[in-house]
Amino acid sequence: MKVKEMIQNTAFSTQTLQMPEPLVAHSSQKCLGIHLIAEFWDGKIIEEQKEVERILLDAARRARSTALAISSHKFSPYGITAFVLLAESHISMHSWPEKNYLAIDIFTCGEKTMPFKALEYLKEIYQPKRVEVREIKRGKIR
Amino acid sequence: MKVKEMIQNTAFSTQTLQMPEPLVAHSSQKCLGIHLIAEFWDGKIIEEQKEVERILLDAARRARSTALAISSHKFSPYGITAFVLLAESHISMHSWPEKNYLAIDIFTCGEKTMPFKALEYLKEIYQPKRVEVREIKRGKIR
Repeated sequence: MKVKEMIQNTAFSTQTLQMPEPLVAHSSQKCLGIHLIAEFWDGKIIEEQKEVERILLDAARRARSTALAISSHKFSPYGITAFVLLAESHISMHSWPEKNYLAIDIFTCGEKTMPFKALEYLKEIYQPKRVEVREIKRGKIR
Repeated sequence: MKVKEMIQNTAFSTQTLQMPEPLVAHSSQKCLGIHLIAEFWDGKIIEEQKEVERILLDAARRARSTALAISSHKFSPYGITAFVLLAESHISMHSWPEKNYLAIDIFTCGEKTMPFKALEYLKEIYQPKRVEVREIKRGKIR
């Protein structure tokens, strides 16, 4: 497929979200963040852009985090990339359907957030046959 | 500071970018991605939202990546969070000025991208006194 055809078939979506709850500035929260780096292999392939956005927003809610903005892009012939900017950092997803692979990041900070709940939710949705997860502590103070 | 005051003082910025060059769908690229997870300590504090966006877009260019959208948020009383969605994944930055800490992620895939160039650029800009970098290979095929 020529590059020009790829451009015509791609679709952007970016929106700033209204906050349903008051924003707690992260500067008032404990700053040690948990960053889950997840590799999903051989799961469902979801190519509908708005559905992917809805899934990530649901994941953000499961993590008890506050979504500030969401942005996504659909590639041609296939592949979706998306991120949710959170008050507590971010959730991102990049798909490679031809490899049956999803790169997922769930980075949240603060005492009330539950990144593992977002991870479990995404596993339920995508049903990957193989999952690798690294947990990285961000902002560890010496 | 009450939560309501925090809301009034915060500012969103989200924009979908025009692509200066043809988009190469990442499905046509090698899918092994490099994800740099960088902790910047005790560097410059840059609180101007548009300047932070410009810095991240410059970082994306240094990495020879294609920026699709950028989103940022300024907290009150301080702190900036920002994310650039790339054709090749993403660059993100979350700041904790009160801790003199920046959490930076540079995740790119494909043979032409140069994530370490983006990292070097960000170090030049922020001049952190201490830097910790993890390099994670994403989407390793068995």
